[in-house]
Order: sequence, then structure tokens, then C-alpha cells
Amino acid sequence: NRTYDIAVIPGDGIGKEVMPEGVRALEAAASRFGFSVRQQWHDFASCDYYARHGTMMPEDWKQRLGRPSALFFGAVGWPDTVPDHVSLWGSLLQFRREYDQYVNLRPVRLMEGVPCPLAGRKPGDIDFWVVRENTEGEYSSVGGRMFPGTAREIVLQETVMTRHGVDRILRFAFDLASKRPRKLLTSATKSNGIAITMPYWDERVEAISAEYPDVSHNKFHIDILTANFVLKPQIFDVVVGSNLFGDILSDLGPACAGTIGIAPSGNINPEGDHPSLFEPVHGSAPDIAGQNVANPIGQVWSAAMMLDHLGEADAAAAIMSAIETVLKEPGLRTRDLGGRASTTDCGKAIADAI
Amino acid sequence: NRTYDIAVIPGDGIGKEVMPEGVRALEAAASRFGFSVRQQWHDFASCDYYARHGTMMPEDWKQRLGRPSALFFGAVGWPDTVPDHVSLWGSLLQFRREYDQYVNLRPVRLMEGVPCPLAGRKPGDIDFWVVRENTEGEYSSVGGRMFPGTAREIVLQETVMTRHGVDRILRFAFDLASKRPRKLLTSATKSNGIAITMPYWDERVEAISAEYPDVSHNKFHIDILTANFVLKPQIFDVVVGSNLFGDILSDLGPACAGTIGIAPSGNINPEGDHPSLFEPVHGSAPDIAGQNVANPIGQVWSAAMMLDHLGEADAAAAIMSAIETVLKEPGLRTRDLGGRASTTDCGKAIADAI
Ligand SMILES: CC(C)[C@H](C(=O)O)[C@@H](O)C(=O)O
Ligand SMILES: CC(C)[C@H](C(=O)O)[C@@H](O)C(=O)O
Repeated sequence: NRTYDIAVIPGDGIGKEVMPEGVRALEAAASRFGFSVRQQWHDFASCDYYARHGTMMPEDWKQRLGRPSALFFGAVGWPDTVPDHVSLWGSLLQFRREYDQYVNLRPVRLMEGVPCPLAGRKPGDIDFWVVRENTEGEYSSVGGRMFPGTAREIVLQETVMTRHGVDRILRFAFDLASKRPRKLLTSATKSNGIAITMPYWDERVEAISAEYPDVSHNKFHIDILTANFVLKPQIFDVVVGSNLFGDILSDLGPACAGTIGIAPSGNINPEGDHPSLFEPVHGSAPDIAGQNVANPIGQVWSAAMMLDHLGEADAAAAIMSAIETVLKEPGLRTRDLGGRASTTDCGKAIADAI
Repeated sequence: NRTYDIAVIPGDGIGKEVMPEGVRALEAAASRFGFSVRQQWHDFASCDYYARHGTMMPEDWKQRLGRPSALFFGAVGWPDTVPDHVSLWGSLLQFRREYDQYVNLRPVRLMEGVPCPLAGRKPGDIDFWVVRENTEGEYSSVGGRMFPGTAREIVLQETVMTRHGVDRILRFAFDLASKRPRKLLTSATKSNGIAITMPYWDERVEAISAEYPDVSHNKFHIDILTANFVLKPQIFDVVVGSNLFGDILSDLGPACAGTIGIAPSGNINPEGDHPSLFEPVHGSAPDIAGQNVANPIGQVWSAAMMLDHLGEADAAAAIMSAIETVLKEPGLRTRDLGGRASTTDCGKAIADAI
């Protein structure tokens, strides 16, 4: 009997509203496909927790989490009470780094029932993955200020790329591309301007490409690459980028496909030395929090990614087809998609469809 | 009698084809508005020059340029013979830094006759400026490699922000916003992730905003900001960003407006201590170079920006309306806009309209 221990961390804002729907889908899939899910809910990694304890997480968060099969995460951040860099570096970014979740993986897919902001695109036209390096690069904690508060003030921050870090994300991306019909990897670079780290990135792309003779690859500077997400989204298959470039592309991509409010992501430690974390792309959305209007599909789709990662491919596929069914039904759409369904209505409909 | 000394630097690829059309427009405007243009053409800052001399520019390039009123630049880069970071740091990026052209300014405007890749947008819906810091930030020459060629390889590159550099670009941007009807400045940040330099950027935005009580301002993290360029381009008026973020936004913006092939840019030293440089956003486009099919409008529009900068606002406006006239005429469109006109045809039509 397959049993998964899931650490459930709703976080802040709409994270607390969409998480129950994510869990509902998970349970529906478990009962249909004959596995069980043991949930352990945690209130830390939230600004509420910060308000009570002065830190985003307890010192012994790793012990408290134990050794879960995966982390199921909602959203974190409440800038009115805790600055974003404090809340994020104290929670999500800490998980990514301490659990060595060095892959951030996000699908970009135009789906039926989701209005696309690009003219003349239809389902099937946009279908690719963004693979983001998730532990080093531009997201560095090395740097500081000199002459603070004076006219001479200087602020430095080091971008750090390592052979270890760059090669493993590139291998993951080439590997993913090799399993897709088109077998094309696009690398995001900026070696013409960011002339120390980025030429290194390009070099490693060339070096690692030799291990994947069946995958073709190309590269674009990040500026024209963002332009091409809008102009020619059909040319992409797998796109790999540094921590910052991947961050940008994995918001822009879903935006171009109309799915920014419903896209999922995986923060993955592929070797399984540490648990992986699955979360919707959207944040805590303070502007609509507490109204039961948030779209739960991002959380539910994240559940599908998590199950796929855990080896439950059939369950993942069933969740995806339930999402597709519900998206086609105008009466089940939440406000962001022009409908009037509540978070709960939409979540229940998905669970029923599973 | 007003006379301007223009340093004309065509550079590489289609730069050499569109430059004559830019100059044609300049001369047409000069004869109509009663000023004169003295041209000094230069063959350096090109990969051809590199092939002959082993450097992109002569040692004494500043002396050779003298003290022009402005630099009129085509495009640089020919990656088959010179790596991009060599050609760019040896030419364009050197002008920007040594002439302290700390403002990079680019219009984002949806124009009649230009197909827009975003669904349902019409001329008037998209009309904003991107103001980019152009001398420091992520484009830094500080950093290097340790343990090169080994498995322990580490590559570092420092992002450098100074109070001097940040404050002056913000003042320029607030100032520009204060002259526009909507008076709204949007700041590009990433202070939740890039947690040393970017919170500093945010702090300076707050500090400088106090000097501009009539301008309202907001901020977006760069990931969701790129998404909003696609989803809600109508909400922007003036957008300011660091060197890298501004680079990305000022390609993405024109892409969203359909003008990536025709957008202009100014690299400006507002105080006039050094000459400013005007160039199209597009690059040297090796794939279509030498065929007389490139669209010259980016170069011509750059001429308009240059004349505006030199105080010839009426001439600039006349060039703009000539561009608008030509864009409405299907028979005068180049290949990129679905037409069959050559570079020369289109350039001559614009000059005639002026
Ligand atoms: C060619 C490149 C170095 C340059 C830059 O990144 O600044 C270009 O993209 C630009 O925007 O002018
Ligand atoms: C909230 C923020 C720190 C985070 C990031 O930049 O990684 C988010 O944008 C994401 O993509 O998961």
C-alpha cells in the first residue's frame, strides 16, 4: 500500500484558501488510484507565524518537518507587515537552498478555456517547459553596503556560478529535452552584456551539449528571448536559465499563455536526497485574500506535479484532465477567468471530476 | 545658422544598410527646418574594423571623434567572427560608460499600421517610456574565475550600485514622468529575491519620490512586471529599471507593441558634458544583412530622437509623422511588416514625406 507523507504549508493570504482545494484534489486522486496521503500541516513559513515569533520559521524546522515525501506549499508574503526579502529568505528561499532543490520547473501551456493575451494563438501553439536554476546565481547572499547613508554609498552583490551548480541544471534540462518529441533546448543568456558569468554559462551549455547528441540547442540573450516569448512562443520546447532569468521567464511564459494565475511549479531535488516542494506560481495576493475568490487551479495543478514526481503518473494525469474539464465550463470559472465561481466551488468541481 | 556635427557610425550588418536611410531623413529634415548637419563617418566600432586591426576601435577614438553634437549609431556585432562580449564591450558599452550616457531611453508605442502581437490592443492603448540605467548595476567588469577548467570552478561577478548612479537615473525618470499627463512612475525591482542591491534601489525610489510630490509611483518585481507588459500594458507611463532590468523591458516593451524591429533608443548624457548616442533597438541581424530588406525605420526614428535631444523638436515631429504616414501605406512596408519594399524604397519614402 503506497503511502506518502506530505508536509502541507499554506503560508499567507490566498495560500490559506487555495491549499484546502489542493488537498481535496490530492485526496480524490488517492482514493481513486489506491494510495494514501498522510498530511502534516504546518503554520510556519508565514507572516502570521512571524508576527507571533519574530521569525518566519522555528529554528528546528527541519526536525519538525521530519522526512516528508514532499512539501506542498501555498504562498508566502504579506508586505504590509514583513518586508518581502525577510519573509522570502526566511522561508521559501531557505527550503530551496537547504533542501538543495536546484531545479525549478514550470510548464507553459495554452489550454482550452483560458483566454490567451497573444493574438491568434490556440491550444497546442504554446507548450514548453521553463527549467530554472534554483540555488545560486544572482540570488546570492554575498555582498553589502559601504559608506551607508552618505552620498558615497556603494552597494555590491555578487552573482555566484559554480561548475557544480551550472552543469547539473543543464544536464537536467538536456535530459528533459531528450524525452520530448522536438528535443530542443533553448538557453537564456546575456553574454554580450553580463560579460563574466554569462559567457561561462554559454561555455557550459556547449560542453554539456556534447553529452546529448540527440538534443539540438540554441541560445538567445534574455532581452530578445523575452520578446520572442511574445512574438514566437511556438518555437520553444525546453528553456533553461539562471536563477534570475528563469524567474523572469517562468512568470512571463505563463502570462503569455494566460495561465499566470493557475500555473504550478516544482522545486525539485532530482536525486531525492531531500524532499522536493510544489507550489503555485502566484503569490499570496493580499488584494484578494480572504474573499474566497482566488483561483485554486495553481494549487491543484501543483498537486499533479507533485504526484508525478512521486511516481503516481496516472493520478497526475487524472488531475490534469479534471482541470481541463473544469476550465471548459464557464460556470465553474473563478473571477480572474471571467466567471463567478468561488475558490471552494471550483475546487470541489475539480475533485468531483477526478 | 544652426549646425550640428554628427558622428556617423554604421557598425556591422544591417547597420550599414539602414544608416544611409537615417542620414537621408536627417538631411531632409535639415533642409526643411533650416539647420545643417555636418557628417563625419567612422568605420570603427565594427567587426570589420576588428578584422583589420584586432580591436574594435582605435586607441585614440575619443580624439578622432572630436566633440560631436551627437553620435548616430547603427548596430554592432558579428558573432561568427568576434564574440559578442568582445565586440560590444569594445564599442557600444564603452561609449555608454566613457561618455557617461547614463540614461537609456526607449519609447514603447503602438502605432497604426504595425501589427500588435497582443490581442485586442489598438493604437493609443500602449504608450510609455522605458528609462534604463546605462552605466553600472549588473553590467559590471568586476569579477572573475577561480579554479578554472576544474570541477571546483567558481565564477563571480559583482553587481555595483552607487547612490550617485541610482539617484540620477531615478531623478531623470521622475522628471520625465512629471512632464507627462498621467505622471506615473513604475519602478522595476526584485527586492524579494535579489536581497542586497534591490532593496537599496527600492529605498532610493522612496527617497527621491519625496522630491516629486506631483508624480505617483509604484513598483513591481521584474518577473510579474514582464508579465504585466503582456497582460496590462495600458497601466504604464514611465518605467524605470536597473541596467539589466531596463535592457529586458526595453526589448520586451517594443515587442509587445509590435515595434521591436523599428524602435529607437537614446543613450543620453543629460547634462551635455559628453555627446549622447542614438541607435535603433535592433542589432546587426546577420541573417538578413546584405539583402537590402532591413527595415530602416528604427534608424530614422533614432534620428528623430537625436534631433529632439538637440533642440530641434519640430524637425523631430516631422520625421515622426513621416514615419506614421509611411507605416500606413502597405506598399511601403518592408518584409518584416509583411510588405515587399526594400530598405532604400522605405527610406526614400520617408524622406519624401518629410
Ligand atoms: C548588445 C547589448 C550589449 C546591448 C545591451 O545589453 O545593453 C543591447 O541589448 C541594448 O539593449 O542596447
Ligand atoms: C517570491 C520570490 C522570491 C520568488 C523568486 O523570485 O524565486 C518567486 O518569484 C518565484 O518565482 O518563486
